[in-house]
Parts: sequence; structure tokens; C-alpha cells
Amino acid sequence: MQRQAVILLSGGLDSTTVAAIAQAEGFELYTLSVDYGQRHRCELEAAVRVAERLAVKRHETIHVNLARFGGSALTDRIEVPKGRSGDAMAGPIPVTYVPARNTVFLSLALALAEVVGAADLFLGVNAVDYSGYPDCRPEYIRAFETMANLATKASVEGRLRYRIHTPLIDMTKAQIIRRGVELGVDYALTCTCYDPGPRGRPCRRCDACQLRRKGFAEAGLPDPLMPDL
Amino acid sequence: MQRQAVILLSGGLDSTTVAAIAQAEGFELYTLSVDYGQRHRCELEAAVRVAERLAVKRHETIHVNLARFGGSALTDRIEVPKGRSGDAMAGPIPVTYVPARNTVFLSLALALAEVVGAADLFLGVNAVDYSGYPDCRPEYIRAFETMANLATKASVEGRLRYRIHTPLIDMTKAQIIRRGVELGVDYALTCTCYDPGPRGRPCRRCDACQLRRKGFAEAGLPDPLMPDL
Repeated sequence: MQRQAVILLSGGLDSTTVAAIAQAEGFELYTLSVDYGQRHRCELEAAVRVAERLAVKRHETIHVNLARFGGSALTDRIEVPKGRSGDAMAGPIPVTYVPARNTVFLSLALALAEVVGAADLFLGVNAVDYSGYPDCRPEYIRAFETMANLATKASVEGRLRYRIHTPLIDMTKAQIIRRGVELGVDYALTCTCYDPGPRGRPCRRCDACQLRRKGFAEAGLPDPLMPDL
Repeated sequence: MQRQAVILLSGGLDSTTVAAIAQAEGFELYTLSVDYGQRHRCELEAAVRVAERLAVKRHETIHVNLARFGGSALTDRIEVPKGRSGDAMAGPIPVTYVPARNTVFLSLALALAEVVGAADLFLGVNAVDYSGYPDCRPEYIRAFETMANLATKASVEGRLRYRIHTPLIDMTKAQIIRRGVELGVDYALTCTCYDPGPRGRPCRRCDACQLRRKGFAEAGLPDPLMPDL
């Protein structure tokens, strides 16, 4: 019997690659997107396109209005930083940090995992992103896994042993892109930008656009969303 | 300076007592209710009444549609069990269990706590309820606390050290009610029933109603919601 996995699918480059990796490993995919009031809503539409392309078993978009709490440039009226150098990006935790985001996302993934009987959860955190985000670090991921195995009926009754997979955690953006291309990922479907223009057009200047651009350049591949670069 | 605390306030008897305990301990209260598609929506209205009565600093109701995932009598079309004996209630994990509920709730409380600068989170789990609910056990609570302290910008930067308080965990329903009455809690404001009738009238037969009824009886006090009993 095919094993089930829940994939947190934002519709960005990383989570799309993660979904392709999980599929290549033989899992049946349940993809979950979280609408948390983010400004870059083109992500949610991208996630639907990616889920369709991968022919997943079930795709869910769950709404949780984290924007009510405030505290992040991704949901608040705080300005998204533009044109920052790599050094600036490696500095303190950026204002684009969303309070407890991965904890909320993984909790929702855990709820879905329990309902569908999936023991495996996939999350697209990686070394480049976790420069400043505490909830992208391996020690955080392990602590969540420990908690999850104490949290649910399915794990306590011994039917499921949860495992949080972070296949990108030690990969550079270029390695992620190369792996995705090997697996046939169509990055034209994805959306990365923190502050996109009409029809999801990337701003090209936020941290996310810059990291993506640099990744494609280092991989020696053209980005279908910014083909002129 | 007064310390802030986030209280998960369902509007039920337990969480209302917890809020009163936190206030008596000197905390400034931020109360959080989660609208997760529960059938017993009178809880959410009760939480607003309780928050007003306690004059909390801020009350938030956050929406997260866990009902989409299915899997629980509290959100699904599964029938709520009625008229069960105490022995039956002490049996296997009941169908009223909501997948990963406390994990989702605590994650949202953690997000709010980080935004408002609160290090203290209060949750009304107790020994009677945790008969079958894995996410009401002390080992689960400690694992969540460990994870939380690795999860957020505020904790990683050393500004906050999260603590999850579960003041009711070893108390019987009768002890909880007596403590609440000492603190001046008006239990007429609360809502306990899993399957209430019009205007939040308790069904008197679900597990929650039966535990409440037994608690008031053992405390030797009348329940303002079921005064004839």
C-alpha cells in the first residue's frame, strides 16, 4: 500500500520542489496551503496549479487569519525591504518573519495528517532561508516532531509515528533548483515574490526574488518567471 | 510592570476559571478564542461575555476551519454521544476528540504571545478531560513548551522564555468550580455543552454536560445554567 504524506505547499519554489521529491520517493500526496492573510496571495494560486500538475490525492487551502495579530511585513502595513545585499539578508531576523508561522503551519499539517492517516509531513525549510528564521532550524524541527508524537490519538494509540521531513534543509537554492529540474518541476507554475505586482509578476527586488534569481544564476538555468535575467 | 499572559478562552467552565486564576496571579490578560467550525458555537459568544466581565486587555477570536479536515463529532456529522455512564467516558478516546486541536490552539496562542510580548500561556486542560485526550497530558504540554522556546524570534533572541500554565491539570471538576466561585467567577456566563439547543441551552446529556453537572453536585453548589438539578 502506498504511504501517505502531507506536504506544506506554499506554491513557492522550495515547497514545490519538496512535493516533487516526496512524490519521487513514492508517497501519495496530500498538499496543504495556508491562507494566513499574506500579501503575496499569488502563492495560493500557484499552489493550486502545482497540486493539479502533480495530480495529488487531495489539496486543501485552510484559512487562518494570522494577520489579525499583526507583527509582520508579510501581513501588516510594514514595508517589505527591497534591494538588500546578501550581507544585510544574513543579519538579524527580518521583518518578513511571521510570528510562530511554521508552528501554526505544522500544527495544521498534523491535524490533516491524523485525519488522512499520514505519518509523514514534508516542509520546505532550507539553509538559505533559516539564516534568521528560528522555526527553520533542525533543532526546532526535531522538537516539533517529539511534541507531535505525544499530541494525537493516532500516535498515542501507536497507529502512526510522525516524521517531519525537511529534504532541502542543507541544500543551496541552486541545488534545490537543479534537483527540481531533474524531477521535471515546472518552475513557471510557482510564485516566490514577497510583494508581487499584477498577475503575480515578481518585484525582483525583495529578499525572496533576489535569492531565487541568484539560485537560478548559480544553477546555470534560466528562471521561467524572469527569463530576461 | 504588569506581566502579560495569553489565555486560551473557549468560553467553557474550565477556561473561564483559568482566566480568573491568571488575573488573580496578577497577569494582564490577552484572551484568545478559536472558531474552528465547532457545533457548539455558543462557546464563542460565552468567551466574549467572559472577556468583557474580566475587562481583559484584548480579546481575539481567530478563525481556522479545522472542520474542513473532518474526523470529529464536534465539527463533523458524527453524532455526539449522549447519556454515557462515567465508565464509558473513561474508555477509549472519544469521537468528540478534534485532531491536533490543542496543538493548533497553542500554536495560535504562541503567535499572539510573541506579538504582544507575553511569556505566559494558560490552557484549561484538566485530569477529568484528559482521560482520553492525548493533548491534555503533562508530557505533551512540556514537549510543546520545549518546542515553543525554539520556535520564535522572541525566545531565540532571549527576550521571552515561554511557559505553558495548566493550573487545572490535577483538579477535579468540583475543585475547579469551588476555586472559580472563590474568585468571583459567574458561571452563568459560560457555555459547556457539546450540542446545545436554542440560545445555548445545555442538552444535559452529552459528556460535557454530565461532567459539569457532576462537578457542581460534588462542589455542593447550584449550576446557574441547570438550576433545577
